[in-house]
Amino acid sequence: MLFPGPDLATMPAMNLRLKAVVRYDGTDFSGWQIQPNGRTVQGELERALAQIAGEPVRVHGAGRTDAGVHALAQVCHFEWRAAASPDRLRRALSRMLAPEIRVDAVEEAPPDFHARYSAVGKRYAYCLSCEREPDPFTARYVWHMPWTVDPARMAELAQRLVGEHDFAGFQGGNASVATTVRTIHGIALRPGAVVGPCDAPDVFRLEFHGNGFLYKMIRNITGALVDVARGALPPSRIDDLLASPGPYHGHTAPAHGLILRAVEY
Amino acid sequence: MLFPGPDLATMPAMNLRLKAVVRYDGTDFSGWQIQPNGRTVQGELERALAQIAGEPVRVHGAGRTDAGVHALAQVCHFEWRAAASPDRLRRALSRMLAPEIRVDAVEEAPPDFHARYSAVGKRYAYCLSCEREPDPFTARYVWHMPWTVDPARMAELAQRLVGEHDFAGFQGGNASVATTVRTIHGIALRPGAVVGPCDAPDVFRLEFHGNGFLYKMIRNITGALVDVARGALPPSRIDDLLASPGPYHGHTAPAHGLILRAVEY
Repeated sequence: MLFPGPDLATMPAMNLRLKAVVRYDGTDFSGWQIQPNGRTVQGELERALAQIAGEPVRVHGAGRTDAGVHALAQVCHFEWRAAASPDRLRRALSRMLAPEIRVDAVEEAPPDFHARYSAVGKRYAYCLSCEREPDPFTARYVWHMPWTVDPARMAELAQRLVGEHDFAGFQGGNASVATTVRTIHGIALRPGAVVGPCDAPDVFRLEFHGNGFLYKMIRNITGALVDVARGALPPSRIDDLLASPGPYHGHTAPAHGLILRAVEY
Repeated sequence: MLFPGPDLATMPAMNLRLKAVVRYDGTDFSGWQIQPNGRTVQGELERALAQIAGEPVRVHGAGRTDAGVHALAQVCHFEWRAAASPDRLRRALSRMLAPEIRVDAVEEAPPDFHARYSAVGKRYAYCLSCEREPDPFTARYVWHMPWTVDPARMAELAQRLVGEHDFAGFQGGNASVATTVRTIHGIALRPGAVVGPCDAPDVFRLEFHGNGFLYKMIRNITGALVDVARGALPPSRIDDLLASPGPYHGHTAPAHGLILRAVEY
């Protein structure tokens, strides 16, 4: 169900602006963003909030994770005019929401706080394995590649992308943004999955930290890094993509390996 | 489907006895042991093996995990008269089995190897959390208790059970075994889940190591430890259960928090 967003300009000043931190297993969602058909995280949150508030509530997320992408700490905000305090609201949401979503915190935010525009940094992890047979415990959270790739080689190649660049060449199609310039603060190689069994020696992950990421940018970067690291494309491919006006045409790593770990303000 | 077991005594000596190591997410299985109604791990394995071998194959597991219990390294054995080598068989099984099961190893075993009777030790972990709202990433693998329990207190109480004891008082009903005496080598408290997100500070686990465990013994021990640690029952309850002829009447921890980690030979 699509609710019209409240007209913020006409609201009384005593409304609370609430910030919420939400984790979700994205496997069975059609992504974050509400849509007419398909179960979305934003849609589930708005439906529960509307039931509690007795009126439509429009939720603004820090980022629109794609279908199948997970989040350990997605952040969102919304206007709250109902009686329930932030903590009572959090507990009520927990009872109403499906087990794939958990609201970890609800707190009052400054009136000008905006989950998306106030964010100064984001952390994502992309989890991979060269073990082509999926582990029953990580199949939903790790890309089990059909190739053998040297993780260290991937991480080494990734360093070319660190810093401020125009990442238009890594942007997914059909996206429209004011600027395609972003700063990646770091891309670090770490052993193990973010979610999975502690005994998964075949799993590794790339931890991305930046001031923001374009549509499908991390999945496209990961796809390109894998293709170069496994020898299917030359290392110059990375530089070519950095110089390209976009959009990205190449291998996109699947959604389920990606997890939003933190939004920084 | 139930296949009659092959009559081992009449088999030619050149049959291979194969040992397999299997991991599975037990959430959607009616346990390990084959049964007329319900999807079981043994049933899925026997069906795939029969398809490959062209004849019924009876699989013997090291332990019959209950519905909902997981395994990182369940061990089983079976007689193999077909042409496929152990490694080819492993790969064929991987292609045929549902993603909730992965066969990590298939290898030739001595003719007298028996997955159950040759086992000298088993390791299980029971994962718990005092965060009553399930984490979307651990809900299938962690018991989110409705109480606050001091993990250290649970572990301290558990030490009374270490050593050789008659555990009849912790055995689930309807079980028939030659002896209810077992030796627990250790029960150790560890932070974090066996399967789950690496950022789950509210999760802890009890690692059980013993020469064997009775039907529902670990889940009953865990239930009793929780009840004493949260103050609902006196510490003497543990000693009373150790002195009881059984079967256990009390709180049984739910299946999904339990995971078979290793079988030792």
